[in-house]
Amino acid sequence: MATDLEIARAATLQPITAIAEKAGIPEEALVPFGRHKAKIDLGFLRAQAEKPRGKLVLVTGINPTAAGEGKTTTTIGLADALNAIGTRTMICLREPSLGPCFGVKGGATGGGHAQVAPMEDINLHFTGDFHAITSANNLLSAMIDNHLYWGNGLGLDPRRVTWRRAMDMNDRNLRNMVLGLGGAAQGMPREDGFDITVASEVMAILCLARDLADLQERLGRIIVGQTRDGQSITARDLKADGAMAALLRDALSPNLVQTLEGSPALVHGGPFANIAHGCNSVMATTLGLSLADVVVTEAGFGADLGAEKFLDIKCPSAGLSPDLAVVVATVRALKMHGGVAKAALGTEDVAAVERGVVNLVRHVENMRKFGLPVVVALNKFTTDTAGEIDAVRHAMARIGAEAFLCTHWGDGAAGATELARAVRKLLDEGHAKFRPLYDSALPLADKLRTIAREIYHAAEVQIPPAIAARLKRFEEMGFGHVPVCVAKTPYSFSADPARLGAPEGHVLPVREVRLSAGAGFVVAVCGDIMTMPGLPRRPAAETIGLDAEGRIEGLF
Amino acid sequence: MATDLEIARAATLQPITAIAEKAGIPEEALVPFGRHKAKIDLGFLRAQAEKPRGKLVLVTGINPTAAGEGKTTTTIGLADALNAIGTRTMICLREPSLGPCFGVKGGATGGGHAQVAPMEDINLHFTGDFHAITSANNLLSAMIDNHLYWGNGLGLDPRRVTWRRAMDMNDRNLRNMVLGLGGAAQGMPREDGFDITVASEVMAILCLARDLADLQERLGRIIVGQTRDGQSITARDLKADGAMAALLRDALSPNLVQTLEGSPALVHGGPFANIAHGCNSVMATTLGLSLADVVVTEAGFGADLGAEKFLDIKCPSAGLSPDLAVVVATVRALKMHGGVAKAALGTEDVAAVERGVVNLVRHVENMRKFGLPVVVALNKFTTDTAGEIDAVRHAMARIGAEAFLCTHWGDGAAGATELARAVRKLLDEGHAKFRPLYDSALPLADKLRTIAREIYHAAEVQIPPAIAARLKRFEEMGFGHVPVCVAKTPYSFSADPARLGAPEGHVLPVREVRLSAGAGFVVAVCGDIMTMPGLPRRPAAETIGLDAEGRIEGLF
Repeated sequence: MATDLEIARAATLQPITAIAEKAGIPEEALVPFGRHKAKIDLGFLRAQAEKPRGKLVLVTGINPTAAGEGKTTTTIGLADALNAIGTRTMICLREPSLGPCFGVKGGATGGGHAQVAPMEDINLHFTGDFHAITSANNLLSAMIDNHLYWGNGLGLDPRRVTWRRAMDMNDRNLRNMVLGLGGAAQGMPREDGFDITVASEVMAILCLARDLADLQERLGRIIVGQTRDGQSITARDLKADGAMAALLRDALSPNLVQTLEGSPALVHGGPFANIAHGCNSVMATTLGLSLADVVVTEAGFGADLGAEKFLDIKCPSAGLSPDLAVVVATVRALKMHGGVAKAALGTEDVAAVERGVVNLVRHVENMRKFGLPVVVALNKFTTDTAGEIDAVRHAMARIGAEAFLCTHWGDGAAGATELARAVRKLLDEGHAKFRPLYDSALPLADKLRTIAREIYHAAEVQIPPAIAARLKRFEEMGFGHVPVCVAKTPYSFSADPARLGAPEGHVLPVREVRLSAGAGFVVAVCGDIMTMPGLPRRPAAETIGLDAEGRIEGLF
Repeated sequence: MATDLEIARAATLQPITAIAEKAGIPEEALVPFGRHKAKIDLGFLRAQAEKPRGKLVLVTGINPTAAGEGKTTTTIGLADALNAIGTRTMICLREPSLGPCFGVKGGATGGGHAQVAPMEDINLHFTGDFHAITSANNLLSAMIDNHLYWGNGLGLDPRRVTWRRAMDMNDRNLRNMVLGLGGAAQGMPREDGFDITVASEVMAILCLARDLADLQERLGRIIVGQTRDGQSITARDLKADGAMAALLRDALSPNLVQTLEGSPALVHGGPFANIAHGCNSVMATTLGLSLADVVVTEAGFGADLGAEKFLDIKCPSAGLSPDLAVVVATVRALKMHGGVAKAALGTEDVAAVERGVVNLVRHVENMRKFGLPVVVALNKFTTDTAGEIDAVRHAMARIGAEAFLCTHWGDGAAGATELARAVRKLLDEGHAKFRPLYDSALPLADKLRTIAREIYHAAEVQIPPAIAARLKRFEEMGFGHVPVCVAKTPYSFSADPARLGAPEGHVLPVREVRLSAGAGFVVAVCGDIMTMPGLPRRPAAETIGLDAEGRIEGLF
């Protein structure tokens, strides 16, 4: 069977100018990066701001399992199929992180016949956005330490610096360090660490910014730490916001690429889906909606985390009103939710599907709470049996939803035609009455309780007094109106990754709250979160290389 | 008076396709990055390898002073003037480092009417080469620490890891650190630090590589540290070379830009001029020579460091044979070499010029030792008087050299016509009989002694026994044939930055020797060297920002 890389290479890509023309982007608005990638000029985005808006479709999923679901491939396959049935459709995806390509995960450009291309470029340096974010993040760090070094006029407490450095690399050794060693001329010793670039608040800011001015404004609001008496020091206090914005100017322009079937795709921004909101940039989504009749986009993790943040953080912040949600599931993953081990997934087990489908049912019902019509995409594997598929369909029928079998991985657009027709029909009928889950005026703790109750079906949110006091403090600082961004395990509705299916009555323990003042949300950390991954014993990097023609091998 | 940025913005740039056409590069060999930058496809470089070669002109300078000399502007002005008099000329320059733009130094794209453009792009992210180098450097670091973490099968001694991490930032707090803290799951505690990206051996390798295969071969040879019993561990032992080469694949392609007067310029690579060889890439220089009748290039610092390394490291390694050296000086800088303080440079002082010109005389004589004809470019400032200029001319006449007054900063090509005519005449006459200073078979210590004697006029090289033993060890390891790269102060022929002019009889103390096995040289550290700069009290970053149209302000 051909690998993703082989399929991608066998495809003949169109010049990016042709893709742009198809999308309605004039050549003069294109900033080419080679023949198959381009940035879109910000001036063109400004001119498009008043154009009528297309429909917005969110692709989300059940709680992820080791079996894999295929959210990105479904996003691509659905868009290709919508284009194939004559609906002008664009895709909005996140940019993959370079670091994980060298670990286990591989790239994030879809798979099989549902890919965006050129995959090697997109997975590695692409158009340099992540490098720009890394630089902006670390310029702020350098200016913090430089301020401490030259006398610390602002009185920043070196022990209370919360801003960390960033690198787009899986490198556990950078998690915790003492730097500034070597004596008075070499800096200011203090504890610090690196997060992977996607976890930087700069990434979240780039993805939520509505224009360059908003970008700089948000960068200036970043809180880097506190003085001894608890006053916040911001990037603006350090006069770092202008230079950071200069570093990010080009990165704010969305990137245009294509699917293997020639659909235009905007691949732009890639914030972490736990300590940030996990969806592509507002700039790209807004541009896509001004150009196409339908934009298909994706949110990270399962719908409890990714879709909730898309709907409660990104959409209100950007003034977006989505029209439909597609929830992706596989029979294999539902069997894992029903208690089957990964090794046994090849054996038919209808009862396990019936037990596990409760996870899918809850996600569908949750999406409806936002006023969205929902369809289910059942991403087919060769091991799926008719009985198992029927079990999913029956469960969906019981809640008035429809599940469509999709084979875009193997068949491209042709494998998602039925799904596309159903999506098109629902969009044309206009069922959506989008509303975020909570009002921005609600106190921060109550926002969190609302998410826990309505989405996670938790019985209780455990907020220790010190954390409750911090939330109060954020409100006093003027950040009571912002949404809450939950960082918890993606594997379960609960905070316990082992509780699959549709757990109820559990307790959500809040361990820590952080204010991302620039991005504009409060992060509620509920469980262990990892902001700098490590490499495995045998990293993929060991087998990545160049072939005799200088092409990259071993990326997957 | 207009700033460099204002002059650059007022210029109308030609599409990079037009510049390429002028240079003889077909459009299909161009990989555009926007409208005014492009990479050149490596396949085209391979096809050009057999083409006849143009003449190679090296622009170098006296020992730098606080007064400034203008080597880059002279390189650009000379090339513009050569083109203006009908000689097909290309420029080869180093890429500026992003980090220093936020400190005091500013960019490195020339100045006045002798600039390469677009200056904001070139000074910031450009085409991403430095980011790729940073990533490759740090992937190797991550794989080193990951190897230690997962059991250290190679027996690498964590205390003997010499490979450091890299960042393109002026950030003194990253110089020395203890990382890997936090317990067994968080890594392996050890001492480490970051160098600025230009100081990475990966940068030197990229600049010396002759093709992709040579690049990967050199990367594999990098020595990252030793076992307890002194065996070297390489990047190849860690299986990191393939993934590093994949990260660097696009970065190996030279970048094409233009001067404000439309001369084609290859701006590619930028190794440190102390612990590395300090000149642009072999790939770019070789490409330029295959396309143009004359290539004008530049080496870092003064001729004692930059030109010597260009001639003894880069040229032999790449099989290049330069045809002429231009030594750049200013009256102001010569007055500083003659003992005048910076504040007093505005006052005429012919005697000081006569005292200081010995520095220029020696550099001219040194260049002749390599078999090169030499001309002097006297970069004119408004404060220079006729008497001072005559003093330089007379000193040059005494050694049979000619000094040409240049005003390209203010006048562009027209200000360097006389210099260009003289260069053209000497090239046509074909005086060059290039030979490196020493034979590659000479023992390493003798190579160093030859440089010290012939170029620095030192009486003695002080090599402590432990360092002599290390040099022997390098020879036993098979690295006796490589050149020696001296890291010493650029401000003096001696190791003492205060000894201006033309000191004699001094002692060159060797503090440390390092083997850059991938780059292919031995570094002899003679004095303090700084591989990670810091920011000043008031960093330029504080005044860099975006104007209302989103253009970058405050870069200089």
